[in-house]
Amino acid sequence: MEKLRLAMIGLGVVGSGLLRLLDEKRAVLESDYGLTYDVVAVCDKMRGSIYDPEGLDLETVLTEGPLSDKLKGTRDLTSFEVIDLPDVDVVFEATPTNLKTGGVGLEHARRALSAGKHFISTNKAPPAIAYKELESIARENEVYYGYEGTILSGTPAISLALNGLPASRFFSIRGILNGTTNFMLERMETEGMEFDDALALAQEKGYAESDPSSDIDGWDACAKLVIMANNILKEPITPEDVDMQGIRGVTLEDVKEARKEGKRIKSVSSLVFDNGRLKARVGPEKIDRTDPLYHVHDVTNALVFETDTTDTVTVMGPGAGGRSAGYAMLYDLVEMHRHRTRLYK
Amino acid sequence: MEKLRLAMIGLGVVGSGLLRLLDEKRAVLESDYGLTYDVVAVCDKMRGSIYDPEGLDLETVLTEGPLSDKLKGTRDLTSFEVIDLPDVDVVFEATPTNLKTGGVGLEHARRALSAGKHFISTNKAPPAIAYKELESIARENEVYYGYEGTILSGTPAISLALNGLPASRFFSIRGILNGTTNFMLERMETEGMEFDDALALAQEKGYAESDPSSDIDGWDACAKLVIMANNILKEPITPEDVDMQGIRGVTLEDVKEARKEGKRIKSVSSLVFDNGRLKARVGPEKIDRTDPLYHVHDVTNALVFETDTTDTVTVMGPGAGGRSAGYAMLYDLVEMHRHRTRLYK
Repeated sequence: MEKLRLAMIGLGVVGSGLLRLLDEKRAVLESDYGLTYDVVAVCDKMRGSIYDPEGLDLETVLTEGPLSDKLKGTRDLTSFEVIDLPDVDVVFEATPTNLKTGGVGLEHARRALSAGKHFISTNKAPPAIAYKELESIARENEVYYGYEGTILSGTPAISLALNGLPASRFFSIRGILNGTTNFMLERMETEGMEFDDALALAQEKGYAESDPSSDIDGWDACAKLVIMANNILKEPITPEDVDMQGIRGVTLEDVKEARKEGKRIKSVSSLVFDNGRLKARVGPEKIDRTDPLYHVHDVTNALVFETDTTDTVTVMGPGAGGRSAGYAMLYDLVEMHRHRTRLYK
Repeated sequence: MEKLRLAMIGLGVVGSGLLRLLDEKRAVLESDYGLTYDVVAVCDKMRGSIYDPEGLDLETVLTEGPLSDKLKGTRDLTSFEVIDLPDVDVVFEATPTNLKTGGVGLEHARRALSAGKHFISTNKAPPAIAYKELESIARENEVYYGYEGTILSGTPAISLALNGLPASRFFSIRGILNGTTNFMLERMETEGMEFDDALALAQEKGYAESDPSSDIDGWDACAKLVIMANNILKEPITPEDVDMQGIRGVTLEDVKEARKEGKRIKSVSSLVFDNGRLKARVGPEKIDRTDPLYHVHDVTNALVFETDTTDTVTVMGPGAGGRSAGYAMLYDLVEMHRHRTRLYK
């Protein structure tokens, strides 16, 4: 099997997480899957870009500073020029999420898939906004479009639903899909923090952005629900179909009240079939301790699948983090390779 | 793709659970995986056996009574004769577990795999006792040996570890692998039951056998650990390598004591690498609420994988039940089919 030639767009914590794993896991990926590769191009808004058909030294890429200072190769390529390089087989991408327009991530996805490149990204916006279009471009061009990292980061959530639960019908999928709001609500409950203080702490810890709207207004969870509805349930919903409520309205008083009743307020995201019609919802819910989501702490994420085959299955794990999200892309690389080689291992 | 010809040995709740699913899921298995099949032979200690190369009507098989009373075909075949039928491609098997000798299940496994038949079973004993031998017979004969149902029943635990977490190193795998003891310890804690009363209730509910040793002495969990160590961690341990302690020694007093400290006694099964050496252990542990296993209730099972790639991933779900265990065999059928057709979907 020929070496795959990989390109990475975006060298933030997620992109770097992937490159570190590609460096660490070379031997096991070759021995277990016959998967060999070179990273031939990397591109970053801050650090510039570099392309070397012989393959880049990842250790060097992972040290700070402008890429062209320490690596030889073609420099100053734009992300689109990197995608267009004829000897790039797989484009990895980790760019900021823009849920209004899809941003540059959507343009990257279209460009790569249309050019017949496998495309693997952790950016939620493109599949949330343009699922149908992107899946159909990928199908036409017979390439793999991977976005395992958009849901529960490196925790294999899409994998569990699609590969682990074949032929199952899902009555519902419920989850804690946003770690930031889960962290905030828990601080309010356990430390008696006011909403604004919990938000400030989440920002201080780097969980929430300086504009926290994506988390606390529910956009982030909404995008994830749309992706799961399309991909797992084959229901072609869009963000407008989600009944979305943020946690801005939740007061310390509400949280205390719930606690008195032995309950807990969580921001729950759900896809539930009601008489055959799918209802998608994000919003604060008062849940009790019999609910598996009651016990999801800190920035952990979880999903509960209610099936017609094996009752209720819960998966729980990290919902963010550079290494975990980078790993989600490594998972997709292996998955893509299984398709490509028709090897199932 | 040709129709697969299936045989089922053992028509208890698990075997019946599988046959019901094979009947229900025909259309989706064909449309999603191109997988078509006939069940040509069934065999049961109580209900006799029947073989019809044209395929058996599953609805009729699933009604009670001697099989030959209502179905035409060759009757009175032994389970070994069913395995030997030249037109059987896949043998499903759900016979009682005998952890001392491997019982008839081990003989079935050897016979089927040696004859070049795919073999799928929920019986823990054969892989726990003879993992290396059976894997090597399967490899030599290029057939699939499936036992997803031996761990967490239909909850896709082996699938998650092997397919969902590729190229990961596991620092540890810990879990609640036995529902009966989890149920008993919880009754002691929440209802103040004495050990013997909790056991009697578990027997009344059909969770524990009349000889409850397999559950309460730890044999059941021990077998599961051995399977996971071999299959997931590639560590060739045997049951003798497991430090096994049952829950007979746990008193109501101990449980109350733990509760006072905000803790809970659970029968925890673990595989932990300690300076590169694997330690396998089953036994009661006092755990606190930060441990995901603290929140595993009733007869639910759970596994916590500590990885070097995406931190800690937990999966939770049914650990028993006819439909769930039957579904585990359906999962293996799909998995086998992916290997066979080199289709990855």
